[in-house]
Amino acid sequence: MAAALELFGARDPDDISIDDVAAAAGASRALVYHYFSGKRELYVAALRSAAAGLERRPPPAGGAGSLDALAGALARYFDFAEEHAAGFTALLRGGGAGRCGEVGKIVEGVRGELFASLTRRLPVREPGALLRVTLGSWIAIVESAALDWLEHRDVERRALERLLVDQMVATLTAAARHDPEASHVLHNLKNDR
Amino acid sequence: MAAALELFGARDPDDISIDDVAAAAGASRALVYHYFSGKRELYVAALRSAAAGLERRPPPAGGAGSLDALAGALARYFDFAEEHAAGFTALLRGGGAGRCGEVGKIVEGVRGELFASLTRRLPVREPGALLRVTLGSWIAIVESAALDWLEHRDVERRALERLLVDQMVATLTAAARHDPEASHVLHNLKNDR
Repeated sequence: MAAALELFGARDPDDISIDDVAAAAGASRALVYHYFSGKRELYVAALRSAAAGLERRPPPAGGAGSLDALAGALARYFDFAEEHAAGFTALLRGGGAGRCGEVGKIVEGVRGELFASLTRRLPVREPGALLRVTLGSWIAIVESAALDWLEHRDVERRALERLLVDQMVATLTAAARHDPEASHVLHNLKNDR
Repeated sequence: MAAALELFGARDPDDISIDDVAAAAGASRALVYHYFSGKRELYVAALRSAAAGLERRPPPAGGAGSLDALAGALARYFDFAEEHAAGFTALLRGGGAGRCGEVGKIVEGVRGELFASLTRRLPVREPGALLRVTLGSWIAIVESAALDWLEHRDVERRALERLLVDQMVATLTAAARHDPEASHVLHNLKNDR
């Protein structure tokens, strides 16, 4: 599975054959077909395993909703992105195979999990519209920055993580001017470190 | 094509047949097959037409790099998203069709076009790493907010656009603490309205 993820992350899935996967995994073509009906099923299984790996990361230590806890969660996210660079890129970019059908559902699942783990730390149970948009925006910022980082690697990782924590404060500060709930969350986040 | 976009945006492309498209367009199945070899080609063509529509929007009036120009560009983006809600959602969420390397390329193309039209307005020729990450983040914020808005419609559109302009200033302000180039861009943006 790791071999499949590496392959799918590094090259367009359309160009990869079951033979390539078997060779990379040191297995026979017959064995690969024993477990997977075809390339598409293998691809989706590889992505699902990358997504499960991300969700299994242990929760960060530190105060529930503090900036330190947020920094810890970000570090875990980047640990995963770095350890599974190919799988992570394949998951979020769809590896050239787009965000289609099952892949789209896996990506939405990971995003929903991140959103839930973010809101569990917040002093609100059900975020209103503007807070929901703002938290979703921050997740989009993190995904976009992680993909950019894996592609270019021209920013120091810790510097990028610090920038992203600052971006959370910045996006909440902008939202707080429009939305009392965002203001409440921001106040809580700043005083809980 | 408009009929196809509506269908593909509203339902999972896997569940849509050429007959459905023909019926929605008031055309015969034979006519649809005259132009497209199959459903997948039709789907990609529909997405490409949505993408081209977004890129063809006239540039906004106003100072080249000002906040007003940014607000104008955002309004155009949301005009397009609203007029072509189904196609816009299909384009960015990838709908649900089979395996779509081509869809991924269309989405990356739209994103690259937005990035280029954003940097053309800036007082820098080639953005450095942190500014590139920050502008990419803002595009991710806009996409995420537009998709959320089309799905929930529980925020007033102008309010959301104002929030997004504020988010541009906020993300640049956060980046400016780490990067002199972002600081320069921010200064320019604020003084050019």
